[in-house]
Amino acid sequence: MLIGKVVGTLVSTRKDEKLTGLKFLVLKPVDIQAQETGSYVVAIDAVGAGVGEYVLYATGSSARQTVVTDKRPCDAVIMAIIDTWEVDGDEKYRKNA
Amino acid sequence: MLIGKVVGTLVSTRKDEKLTGLKFLVLKPVDIQAQETGSYVVAIDAVGAGVGEYVLYATGSSARQTVVTDKRPCDAVIMAIIDTWEVDGDEKYRKNA
Amino acid sequence: MLIGKVVGTLVSTRKDEKLTGLKFLVLKPVDIQAQETGSYVVAIDAVGAGVGEYVLYATGSSARQTVVTDKRPCDAVIMAIIDTWEVDGDEKYRKNA
Amino acid sequence: MLIGKVVGTLVSTRKDEKLTGLKFLVLKPVDIQAQETGSYVVAIDAVGAGVGEYVLYATGSSARQTVVTDKRPCDAVIMAIIDTWEVDGDEKYRKNA
Amino acid sequence: MLIGKVVGTLVSTRKDEKLTGLKFLVLKPVDIQAQETGSYVVAIDAVGAGVGEYVLYATGSSARQTVVTDKRPCDAVIMAIIDTWEVDGDEKYRKNA
Repeated sequence: MLIGKVVGTLVSTRKDEKLTGLKFLVLKPVDIQAQETGSYVVAIDAVGAGVGEYVLYATGSSARQTVVTDKRPCDAVIMAIIDTWEVDGDEKYRKNA
Repeated sequence: MLIGKVVGTLVSTRKDEKLTGLKFLVLKPVDIQAQETGSYVVAIDAVGAGVGEYVLYATGSSARQTVVTDKRPCDAVIMAIIDTWEVDGDEKYRKNA
Repeated sequence: MLIGKVVGTLVSTRKDEKLTGLKFLVLKPVDIQAQETGSYVVAIDAVGAGVGEYVLYATGSSARQTVVTDKRPCDAVIMAIIDTWEVDGDEKYRKNA
Repeated sequence: MLIGKVVGTLVSTRKDEKLTGLKFLVLKPVDIQAQETGSYVVAIDAVGAGVGEYVLYATGSSARQTVVTDKRPCDAVIMAIIDTWEVDGDEKYRKNA
Repeated sequence: MLIGKVVGTLVSTRKDEKLTGLKFLVLKPVDIQAQETGSYVVAIDAVGAGVGEYVLYATGSSARQTVVTDKRPCDAVIMAIIDTWEVDGDEKYRKNA
């Protein structure tokens, strides 16, 4: 999994029927220091994440293993909202810190 | 999922029998600002997309989860036509805007 | 899917038993202008492709969805021989043109 | 599989229910000489690895093939703690050496 | 699939129980001219390959399609030992040549 920051939303009315009711969020993957990288990914939200939150997302077939994404044409899912992570003993991020 | 702009079409008459009747579209992935990047991908159309439209596409095994691509040798599918997306409060794209 | 040009062949006599009878072709992926890129991939041929032809290939689990590659340890398959593709109204390639 | 060094931990209380009880570790992939690269990955621990250890991790659907990750939305798993590896006859790493 | 040269071995005693008895080999992927590239991958051996041999390896879920890797947490497998490959009519490699 990788860490991403939720930065936006995406809306589509004309889509595969299996996607009805799912919410698309725009993520910017961050590096291990919590800094944004230049890329992005559009993921389906399985945990009620909001803009500004740091989340963990899974890609590929693993993105279909949550209850909301089961058997959907979805290759990226937000499956956890992060409280904190640390590297080499240093806390790199803490929610609402 | 990533965002792509439909830029062309591809035709093949000699192909695996499971691909009969499916439509191949050529996409250029775009960045988060809706600008084209240098790469491309050929995807199967599951939503009736046309040249010039901005779409969401899924790759890998997730590309086989739409009704039209089920069990097909397809690793990229267009599964949504985008209305709009926004990042950090700024609208980056709106259909027919 | 991506577009590749068939540039060669690969032979192996000592291989997993599930690969018996399958043909390995060497592909060079091409860009959207039909120009070769620096990389390559070895794919199993599901459509009778020959050296010099431009083909469409699928990767990952989707490469096992053709009749010849079903349940084989194969992560790249040629599933279509291309007749033509066009981008922004310009034909970039036509077979035997 | 790739080799990674465990460098940290990640905590999430709000997550998909299938992730309950699993432990997230932060890895830095290393090169063949055991030197850290600039990237990272968050993996689920299936073998009781600790910070500082060199481990083998699998990604994609293969990450769901351990007992602890079966059917979970997990795309990276630590499935082995490394004792040693050698390249061209030179030992590149030995645990507790 | 890609071509790799077997350059070493990796040993792990503490690992997921499904990996018992499998052999880990260290590969260096090679380019189409048989020259080593800077990267590596650790793969499970399904064909009895040895150090110095050029092999074909499959990644992702396809790596679990050999008899020895079925349902294992393995994302890379050596499934063929290469005899020869040629590109544009030139032989690039021949075993024991």
